[in-house]
Amino acid sequence: MSNSEFQQVTESATETVNSHNPYGPNPADYLSNVNSFQLIDSTLREGEQFANAFFDTEKKIEIAKALDDFGVDYIELTSPVASEQSRSDCEAICKLGLKAKILTHIRCHMDDAKVAVETGVDGVDVVIGTSKFLRQYSHGKDMNYIAKSAIEVIEFVKSKGIEIRFSSEDSFRSDLVDLLNIYKTVDKIGVNRVGIADTVGCANPRQVYELMRTLKTVVSCDVECHFHNDTGCAIANAYTALEGGAKLIDVAVLGIGERNGITPLGGLMARMIVAAPEYVKSKYKLHKIRDIENLVAEAVEVNIPFNNPITGFCAFTHKAGIHAKAILANPSTYEILDPHDFGLKRYIHFANRLTGWNAIKSRVDQLNLNMSDNQIKEVTNKIKKLGDIRPLNIDDVDSIIKDFHSEITTPQLQSLRNSGVDDDVTAFDIAQPPVKKAKTDQ
Amino acid sequence: MSNSEFQQVTESATETVNSHNPYGPNPADYLSNVNSFQLIDSTLREGEQFANAFFDTEKKIEIAKALDDFGVDYIELTSPVASEQSRSDCEAICKLGLKAKILTHIRCHMDDAKVAVETGVDGVDVVIGTSKFLRQYSHGKDMNYIAKSAIEVIEFVKSKGIEIRFSSEDSFRSDLVDLLNIYKTVDKIGVNRVGIADTVGCANPRQVYELMRTLKTVVSCDVECHFHNDTGCAIANAYTALEGGAKLIDVAVLGIGERNGITPLGGLMARMIVAAPEYVKSKYKLHKIRDIENLVAEAVEVNIPFNNPITGFCAFTHKAGIHAKAILANPSTYEILDPHDFGLKRYIHFANRLTGWNAIKSRVDQLNLNMSDNQIKEVTNKIKKLGDIRPLNIDDVDSIIKDFHSEITTPQLQSLRNSGVDDDVTAFDIAQPPVKKAKTDQ
Repeated sequence: MSNSEFQQVTESATETVNSHNPYGPNPADYLSNVNSFQLIDSTLREGEQFANAFFDTEKKIEIAKALDDFGVDYIELTSPVASEQSRSDCEAICKLGLKAKILTHIRCHMDDAKVAVETGVDGVDVVIGTSKFLRQYSHGKDMNYIAKSAIEVIEFVKSKGIEIRFSSEDSFRSDLVDLLNIYKTVDKIGVNRVGIADTVGCANPRQVYELMRTLKTVVSCDVECHFHNDTGCAIANAYTALEGGAKLIDVAVLGIGERNGITPLGGLMARMIVAAPEYVKSKYKLHKIRDIENLVAEAVEVNIPFNNPITGFCAFTHKAGIHAKAILANPSTYEILDPHDFGLKRYIHFANRLTGWNAIKSRVDQLNLNMSDNQIKEVTNKIKKLGDIRPLNIDDVDSIIKDFHSEITTPQLQSLRNSGVDDDVTAFDIAQPPVKKAKTDQ
Repeated sequence: MSNSEFQQVTESATETVNSHNPYGPNPADYLSNVNSFQLIDSTLREGEQFANAFFDTEKKIEIAKALDDFGVDYIELTSPVASEQSRSDCEAICKLGLKAKILTHIRCHMDDAKVAVETGVDGVDVVIGTSKFLRQYSHGKDMNYIAKSAIEVIEFVKSKGIEIRFSSEDSFRSDLVDLLNIYKTVDKIGVNRVGIADTVGCANPRQVYELMRTLKTVVSCDVECHFHNDTGCAIANAYTALEGGAKLIDVAVLGIGERNGITPLGGLMARMIVAAPEYVKSKYKLHKIRDIENLVAEAVEVNIPFNNPITGFCAFTHKAGIHAKAILANPSTYEILDPHDFGLKRYIHFANRLTGWNAIKSRVDQLNLNMSDNQIKEVTNKIKKLGDIRPLNIDDVDSIIKDFHSEITTPQLQSLRNSGVDDDVTAFDIAQPPVKKAKTDQ
């Protein structure tokens, strides 16, 4: 094929990189809350249902204070009827005088509601299963019974001057007409918000978006969403829910909850800072994420997952030579998140066989050594050869660089070098043939 | 509000639960490949760029064989020009005679292509940065240069009878007209597939869907997608890409790769089995996921994340009483994934203060003890009281149940019991007042 067949591309070389934010809210999403969402942290409710969780009163208070300091809008607590201690802990947290509003989460039943309104909470989240699965195998009630209970509970809680949310459970396996019918009913009697819950983690993003759009044509109140992570979509589903008009997202620190949990606080922040950087940075203390995650991880005896967004040990580590080269020129080339926004640092992983001479040049500069580009390319080849044989650490690389530097700057060693004696390679016992044409930037 | 204001809901009690699959492909997605996708595993390419990765030849072969046995369609390897060892390992894996096709991943440059086609691979994946960021700070080339190089490399690789993929890098920060132009060009000269890469992990699901739909109007070849997970959307983006017409998804075991990695093999399987159960179960050996993840986790010295889909330690653990009750009646109530599909088991976590009497009843049955429902509710209250004070293990619960059972079946203890002596509670030194009205199912 001749070049004349290729349609020439017009280059606008002067156009500024990143002149707008292509990851911001989609202008077509006229109900989007991507720029105005709120967080309901449920570490002390959903999170208590995590297999390893046992929070004593002191730990609950410590976590609640940390979340409040971070800036979550609501803190949701286990039902006061779950156990005596749950009730007294709920009362104790309500007395802390936090900025965040305190919620408790109960079944849609007057017995529970009567206890909940006496705890001092700012709001009550009621939930009832609406899917055929749950109606058949859990509570055994029909939709008419559900509606009657909902009305009774909502009117009772409202009469006490307390916020009330009504949520279905397992919303994505519930009949759409049933759902819209019950939400329309509770919206009419003045519920503060309705909740959609992907209780089993089955929903996919476009399904979530469509349901939000439909629901927002039926209710005028705010919509809250709760997504489980069984199929790995809890962050994405939260994002598309906001695009579709949801206002509040349930999160937990590290996502802890039933099974493998729900939308994680940190992971959602990673998603949202890309879409709404000013809003997120002004509202939430992002540099506290690491401490909050460590606090909760220790309390429930888990490690921060190696691949956790933001705080995973390698979230800001760049390894391949071609990546390192560009990152050194401009971090935005291979980073959509800036580690400094979270009080963290990036790290160029240069001690490996995929390294490139730009990464090694950066290390040479850090070591304050003076070497030409050709010399750096030569020492990079030595490093890659050793990296082919075994894992390298920083000390290995530094030793090779320093030995090489001595060699090129010490007159005596320089003459040895020129006579062909290859001391630092044999020093590492490399049995490989010399690399003929080593590539540095793959 | 009177009940007459509530719109009565029609109940179709006889309707079968789960008569169709609401999570299957959306009929409106006429280009969807949700039911016909393919996997390109890049553990031995992208995964080698993971901070901790150092695979020797033996380990690479072990991983390649495990992936082949699992059923991935393609295995992608590090460029043979990255290092001498990379080249010889590539040649060694090509000689294994695996069912999976072997690919290697190179820069869009003739120097690399000439080496790649001599390794014995079935296909070559070429990539070049097309975003302004990468063009400015990485290779410094314009779109016309990129197109010329692409045509040269594609025609060369095709002339050797080898599959060729052309991918842009950082596709979601590239100019759409540039992208469509270059893809149209390479499609016309017969590239086997084109690749879209979210190199920095910035894309969101609906954005991915829209790009796929648009791209599929421009090219007739297959589309492959590569999603980084910086903002936690790599699984969801892969799913919406398939909905929009992408055919192949790049995955890595545990998602290992640059920074916090790409779409994980296991997590994507969790997503896809919900949408296309027959296709996924017939094509991939799902019960091998745990072994493959353990193999790679050990090789790169990380732990399986506690919240990993499918294999996380609590992925199939149910804790709250209300969940446990329903799960015992029908696992589908709180599970969208069946652990048996992955050679795993579910676990009802009953030893905690959120437990319910249904969970305890199940344990009583396991212990083969004979107790009435009222007796089980009574012993459940004792368990919840101790659970308020400290974390419980199974032995604690079993001891309480067995003591209680002895008490109610031994005539001597029974008379003590009837006289009001509460021996098993004091045995655990519980300083709390008795629970007046304990709830079991929150």
